[in-house]
Amino acid sequence: MLRAAIVGATGIVGQQFLEALVNHPQIRVEGLAASARSAGKRYGEALRDPQTGSLRWYGAFDVLAAVEDMVVEDASELDPRRFDVIFTAIEADEARTLEPRYAAETPVISTASAFRYENDVPILIPGINSTHARLLPVQQRNRGWKGFIVPIPNCTTTGLVITLKPLLDRFGLRSLIMTSMQALSGAGRSPGVPSMDILDNIIPFIPKEEGKVEVETRKILGKLEGEAITPADVVVSATCTRVNVMDGHTETVSVSLGRKADLDEVMDAWRTFAGDVPVADLPSAPPSLIHVSTDPYRPQPRLDRDTGGGMTTVVGRLRPEPVLPDGVKYILLSHNTKMGAAKGAVFVAEMLIRDGYIGGN
Amino acid sequence: MLRAAIVGATGIVGQQFLEALVNHPQIRVEGLAASARSAGKRYGEALRDPQTGSLRWYGAFDVLAAVEDMVVEDASELDPRRFDVIFTAIEADEARTLEPRYAAETPVISTASAFRYENDVPILIPGINSTHARLLPVQQRNRGWKGFIVPIPNCTTTGLVITLKPLLDRFGLRSLIMTSMQALSGAGRSPGVPSMDILDNIIPFIPKEEGKVEVETRKILGKLEGEAITPADVVVSATCTRVNVMDGHTETVSVSLGRKADLDEVMDAWRTFAGDVPVADLPSAPPSLIHVSTDPYRPQPRLDRDTGGGMTTVVGRLRPEPVLPDGVKYILLSHNTKMGAAKGAVFVAEMLIRDGYIGGN
Amino acid sequence: MLRAAIVGATGIVGQQFLEALVNHPQIRVEGLAASARSAGKRYGEALRDPQTGSLRWYGAFDVLAAVEDMVVEDASELDPRRFDVIFTAIEADEARTLEPRYAAETPVISTASAFRYENDVPILIPGINSTHARLLPVQQRNRGWKGFIVPIPNCTTTGLVITLKPLLDRFGLRSLIMTSMQALSGAGRSPGVPSMDILDNIIPFIPKEEGKVEVETRKILGKLEGEAITPADVVVSATCTRVNVMDGHTETVSVSLGRKADLDEVMDAWRTFAGDVPVADLPSAPPSLIHVSTDPYRPQPRLDRDTGGGMTTVVGRLRPEPVLPDGVKYILLSHNTKMGAAKGAVFVAEMLIRDGYIGGN
Amino acid sequence: MLRAAIVGATGIVGQQFLEALVNHPQIRVEGLAASARSAGKRYGEALRDPQTGSLRWYGAFDVLAAVEDMVVEDASELDPRRFDVIFTAIEADEARTLEPRYAAETPVISTASAFRYENDVPILIPGINSTHARLLPVQQRNRGWKGFIVPIPNCTTTGLVITLKPLLDRFGLRSLIMTSMQALSGAGRSPGVPSMDILDNIIPFIPKEEGKVEVETRKILGKLEGEAITPADVVVSATCTRVNVMDGHTETVSVSLGRKADLDEVMDAWRTFAGDVPVADLPSAPPSLIHVSTDPYRPQPRLDRDTGGGMTTVVGRLRPEPVLPDGVKYILLSHNTKMGAAKGAVFVAEMLIRDGYIGGN
Repeated sequence: MLRAAIVGATGIVGQQFLEALVNHPQIRVEGLAASARSAGKRYGEALRDPQTGSLRWYGAFDVLAAVEDMVVEDASELDPRRFDVIFTAIEADEARTLEPRYAAETPVISTASAFRYENDVPILIPGINSTHARLLPVQQRNRGWKGFIVPIPNCTTTGLVITLKPLLDRFGLRSLIMTSMQALSGAGRSPGVPSMDILDNIIPFIPKEEGKVEVETRKILGKLEGEAITPADVVVSATCTRVNVMDGHTETVSVSLGRKADLDEVMDAWRTFAGDVPVADLPSAPPSLIHVSTDPYRPQPRLDRDTGGGMTTVVGRLRPEPVLPDGVKYILLSHNTKMGAAKGAVFVAEMLIRDGYIGGN
Repeated sequence: MLRAAIVGATGIVGQQFLEALVNHPQIRVEGLAASARSAGKRYGEALRDPQTGSLRWYGAFDVLAAVEDMVVEDASELDPRRFDVIFTAIEADEARTLEPRYAAETPVISTASAFRYENDVPILIPGINSTHARLLPVQQRNRGWKGFIVPIPNCTTTGLVITLKPLLDRFGLRSLIMTSMQALSGAGRSPGVPSMDILDNIIPFIPKEEGKVEVETRKILGKLEGEAITPADVVVSATCTRVNVMDGHTETVSVSLGRKADLDEVMDAWRTFAGDVPVADLPSAPPSLIHVSTDPYRPQPRLDRDTGGGMTTVVGRLRPEPVLPDGVKYILLSHNTKMGAAKGAVFVAEMLIRDGYIGGN
Repeated sequence: MLRAAIVGATGIVGQQFLEALVNHPQIRVEGLAASARSAGKRYGEALRDPQTGSLRWYGAFDVLAAVEDMVVEDASELDPRRFDVIFTAIEADEARTLEPRYAAETPVISTASAFRYENDVPILIPGINSTHARLLPVQQRNRGWKGFIVPIPNCTTTGLVITLKPLLDRFGLRSLIMTSMQALSGAGRSPGVPSMDILDNIIPFIPKEEGKVEVETRKILGKLEGEAITPADVVVSATCTRVNVMDGHTETVSVSLGRKADLDEVMDAWRTFAGDVPVADLPSAPPSLIHVSTDPYRPQPRLDRDTGGGMTTVVGRLRPEPVLPDGVKYILLSHNTKMGAAKGAVFVAEMLIRDGYIGGN
Repeated sequence: MLRAAIVGATGIVGQQFLEALVNHPQIRVEGLAASARSAGKRYGEALRDPQTGSLRWYGAFDVLAAVEDMVVEDASELDPRRFDVIFTAIEADEARTLEPRYAAETPVISTASAFRYENDVPILIPGINSTHARLLPVQQRNRGWKGFIVPIPNCTTTGLVITLKPLLDRFGLRSLIMTSMQALSGAGRSPGVPSMDILDNIIPFIPKEEGKVEVETRKILGKLEGEAITPADVVVSATCTRVNVMDGHTETVSVSLGRKADLDEVMDAWRTFAGDVPVADLPSAPPSLIHVSTDPYRPQPRLDRDTGGGMTTVVGRLRPEPVLPDGVKYILLSHNTKMGAAKGAVFVAEMLIRDGYIGGN
């Protein structure tokens, strides 16, 4: 069993890491870290709101029972050498300081954006751009680290690139216009979206989100050539909004393919997509990365977000896009806190374990 | 005072007509009609759910107080000659039968789609395509009617064409891609959207809606040449979804203009838009048809839908659209049951009164 | 394996029966019945909205997959002799006609209220009033039936009587005042609660609900003496409201006990409650019928409704009730479509199987 | 015109004060104060979220337009002598320090709980306990202040005591059991109720709320005898919960009256209630303090909260309460940020102006 730490363990994504790792066949959680304020407390106690006594736990209670007596450590003092892999669920600012310190010794899988845009850092999705992992030795050499940092994408990018990859491979891809309707959990709990802001409402702007989607999509779909990733030559235009949905990001997507394709071909590209490398044998892998629905009323977040254990991107409403050359349009749904966050990060770790980047020595 | 009837008076849009006409300076409601089931009852009584006794009234109670004792008439037996104008708030199927019968004698302003797509029927928005009213004498001659039918657009089309018109006039317009996030009230109350379908959810499909938006947009932006409207040569691509918002349709729009324009010019086109003909003097006219916000968090449905008494379309988040030639993108909000339904129909009536199509003899 | 039919199989509660019976160790679903409109269709097809094509399925899709090809039968023509037990999920009106016809041959477990208030009909909750099953031979003799009808309680009564039973047994019970905040699913989907009625709202009245709770509570807590149930001598006062929650009825309860009891004793009565007869070995039984929380912020419907597979009633916020003699007050949460409907009915069937009322010959 | 300051002007209740005072016939806002962080900024600028730029304004935009250029002052340095009355909308902790400093010079109307429970401080509701204002000279003498502090009640107490007062006067009152379903705005915006906590949920506990309701109800309904208020001899039992409603607190109430009364008498007591002293002439007074509905589906928060400009408490569902001696039960609705907060405080100021406590010299 590999020994893992979760940094930022008390937040929503931290809790999702615990859900993703309970009973994991390869990874055992041996450290929970958070800010100095929580350090030294039992985990169950650290989840209590100091003012109201409310327990801030969002998952299943048997998951909590398994870890509530672990003592939370101070993230800034955590010794990375005690672990084979460290999962981080912290803000970009903290990540900028903490992650390099950890990575000097140990592989770090990060949900933060802090290092996503650096040249020697791949943003990994198993089955989509698995080969970008070959950039890790470069990163280690550049930085003199024994470990490395692998960020997963922004949760809005994840479902998008998963549905784009088979299209790019089969038809080529020129450009896309996307509108997202994002779930509340993507903003975290507190500070997150105040209930007074979202009841009977939509918030039409999420700071920095659109830029992240645009840059990350091109990078993930890009080619690793030599020691650098050349971003895909795709024009990406995103509009990101927040709606009153708990989990599951919905995105309407209009794509200009590289060549004319009829809808059956597109459907077939998705249905037969096997991943850039096979990943179906990894513990967190869903039966398929993409599920295509022909019911025009699907995907719906509440009904479809848990498809494949929250790891499958569901696409539907495939139609021609008359505005774009060789255009098609569709709607996708991706679970933002499972495939799009903690469980997606665990999925990455599993691939890196299999491929010898983690735990091999 | 002109005498008006409201047909379909017990439904939500019917009630919105009453809100729009209470204390109207030119129009007095003298008839309320509905299905045979409600006929003969006091209006206040007809609003009661027969099974539960619940009062199905959605507006201000002083509006109801003014009309609750009026006796509801059977729409299929209503004598149109008693009225100067008839407002209809009924389904397309019924409209197909009832509206021609009324129009034989009296002008009909309709919220139904039944006649929107016929060649001699203009879909009117005051200030946007006011001159299409000149088609009405053709309609009367073709059909041998003393009155006429003027439908207003689908509520999702309304805000879209209002924001497009100044762009078309100033820059030309090639194509657009739109995603809507539509309010519950657009579906009516019962049958409407069941609460179990929309809590913590999005419904990614609204039957027939996308086709309506595409056809109506081209028609309203088209040119009346001779005795026919030539639809605008604009490619329109719509994706329509339902979200958990009471009132106010939000739309993300990417537009390919006819020529390069910087954002200031676009903003200026909206801000200086004065209507194809002046309509600001009409009783239901808002201070301006379009309000431009520079706050990136706006428009929001709950905060902005009542701008200009629900008659102003609010636009925000104007940005370049990199995917489309000479592209810009923005987000708009339009009140679907005010400008997009009853009050918008009253606004049309006011213009037709001013211009002598209604009430002139 | 016993052969079961589900009548009313296409509705929400019918679907919950399928969820409750998939992979059941003792019961196999061999018949799905619904109205004549659905009869003859594949189940998966019968779930489609005829107007929109939307699939009206509310559960897990693997459950649907197992039954979607079964052909729906006409409930009015179903031959009860083909089954060992029939579960009904229909309105009271239909139940009044259909259930006696079925019960003439086969045991019927009913979620309808049609027969709940008849003298020879017990309303059963396993572990609460299991011994009331002894009324069934009386019912059979009275009516000349080979089978019988056993209704489960109204979903609002269920959690209430479960929490009251240990108090009655230990302390006695004089009276109680209850306010419910009930979930949307209790009203069914369509017609159910329109989304426009409940967004940003509470509906302070549910027709007939309060009377049901008052009568059923006394009957279930009553004593079977000879051939009749003497209702418990408890004054029950209920106020039932609807709130914007999907599943899980919350109830605030103030109780006047039969004698003074401190809070620890009350807590202990709940925690040690073992059922009037043991039921923990039944397949659908939860680890415990009652879970007591000491977190003041619990129970919450979204966090707690699935406790014990939706079969456990969660109580919290136990405090003294100063207004009532020997009073205590608390809040409870019960899953209205699991313990309070289909799965609760299956639980009853399991007890009746064990005790030889069903399937024994 | 009297000169007023609003302290805590940037929060939700502060904004509601601006709504309540715009175009007020007697009071002009001449000072806006907030924390040091906002001090020195234009009001419109102080409302901006420093991180996101979002404008945190919750009211009508023409109200904002009237004050957005006023410069916010530091509450801790505000000179009370510049004002005839100071309205505070701050937390209890700050109130404990700031309000006495202001009250040394100027009357303070407070929405905070800091001084509500002190012997020489009346909690005022015009028309309910107007005569308690006679305690103010005692307070001034005790404390050596030129001004005074008058808190309004907790927003959950307000509607309750308004409906109880006519019952107490006519029948006497022994005890009551109340369950509240409180709106989000009662918790403020941020920190307030996180959207992830309340979607598809109820929170069954609001810290300190129940105790406030119990103590305040007895005090407000008490008698001023000599220089002290003797609390009413009424046992009050409250359970307070939070639901997903924007504005308007709903309460189910079971009351034990002092003598037997039939429902018509109770209805009559409410309908004919004229206030302990007349207040109908005050600018913010509603047509009546209480409106009685006989529709069993009312009151509903979204439909009824704005009755009487948000100043009328709506009661409905009056029924006998079988559990309590001489019992009746009913449901009430009160607008928590209008009558229950800022506008209610302005209403108090208006009464104190009329009666010479404010502005008289």
